[in-house]
Amino acid sequence: MARKITGPEIERVIHLLARLPGFGPRSARKAGLALIKKRHELLEPLAKALIEAAEKILSCQICGNLDTQSPCNICSDEKRDGALIVVVEDIGDLWALERAEVVAGRYHILGGHLSPLDGIGPEKLNIPSLLARVRSPVIEILLALSSTVEGQSTVHYLREQLAPSGVAVSVLARGVPVGGELDYLDEGTLAAAIKSRRPLA
Amino acid sequence: MARKITGPEIERVIHLLARLPGFGPRSARKAGLALIKKRHELLEPLAKALIEAAEKILSCQICGNLDTQSPCNICSDEKRDGALIVVVEDIGDLWALERAEVVAGRYHILGGHLSPLDGIGPEKLNIPSLLARVRSPVIEILLALSSTVEGQSTVHYLREQLAPSGVAVSVLARGVPVGGELDYLDEGTLAAAIKSRRPLA
Repeated sequence: MARKITGPEIERVIHLLARLPGFGPRSARKAGLALIKKRHELLEPLAKALIEAAEKILSCQICGNLDTQSPCNICSDEKRDGALIVVVEDIGDLWALERAEVVAGRYHILGGHLSPLDGIGPEKLNIPSLLARVRSPVIEILLALSSTVEGQSTVHYLREQLAPSGVAVSVLARGVPVGGELDYLDEGTLAAAIKSRRPLA
Repeated sequence: MARKITGPEIERVIHLLARLPGFGPRSARKAGLALIKKRHELLEPLAKALIEAAEKILSCQICGNLDTQSPCNICSDEKRDGALIVVVEDIGDLWALERAEVVAGRYHILGGHLSPLDGIGPEKLNIPSLLARVRSPVIEILLALSSTVEGQSTVHYLREQLAPSGVAVSVLARGVPVGGELDYLDEGTLAAAIKSRRPLA
């Protein structure tokens, strides 16, 4: 902006908001304005909540999730099925699965996928801590990784690492997404959906 | 959400982010995740910036703008034309005009528009402080208010209040917006554009 509209403190808030996913320079300015207009109802409570969260964020010593306690809320939830561990690349994947309420077990956050070109080898991922968790009562490891080349090569690597333990290893089903129209789907997805077709019940 | 994914401190951040314009519950969750994942690069700087802004926000004693100094950055800008005051309803309107870099003068924030149904009479608006500003070197007051019934009745009220001072009072032009297609425009706008037509230079 050529002209100076506000002081540096407000500009800094807008600049930082613009780095959040979902915000651009313009919407961050709108949000910044809403914050300074609602100083007592929104700005101050948000500042306080951020500081409290920053003070309390911990990485779960079991699964690698970020939470305000360790073990995290999910690892310490006694109602969950101890037989199943769902391996995901990122905490965002965990949150997506939790939103869908489709996982009865617990999680393990890998912290990414193998990517030799980016210098990400097995030693950069949370693999030792996963292998250490494979003991009673765990009977199944579901590898819920991306359906990309890197994600799938990570699946193959983990399958080899997990083989000696004798634990059951599974992956997500592939097929037509709910609401998906066939003529918009790629050939790989269509091939998988044909190959894994099932009898109509 | 039925199940508890994270601790109350993180949920509170997400809940407050969801109250910002441009964010819903889902995008606020994404932004919250980005914040806790980038604790040192994003969460802590944002918390600090918000606190600094909260401590320094002031209402400009001249125009009613919110800034970190009073008189605000605009009122204290010596390069601006002292002859023109642009009256706007809200700080958001000031920011929009500043983004467009189309105002050479200074502003006055009315704080809304007359709305008898909502109990907003002249006494609720920053009108006395506007009348007090109408003296040399001010020679023009541009009423840049909304093109709504309430905005226009506020224009009429202010015109009466300003009349004794003899200052020149103007309003924004009405017509076809840049990029506007005629068959999408309302009849009022088309009528105004025809009435105020100008010879092709």
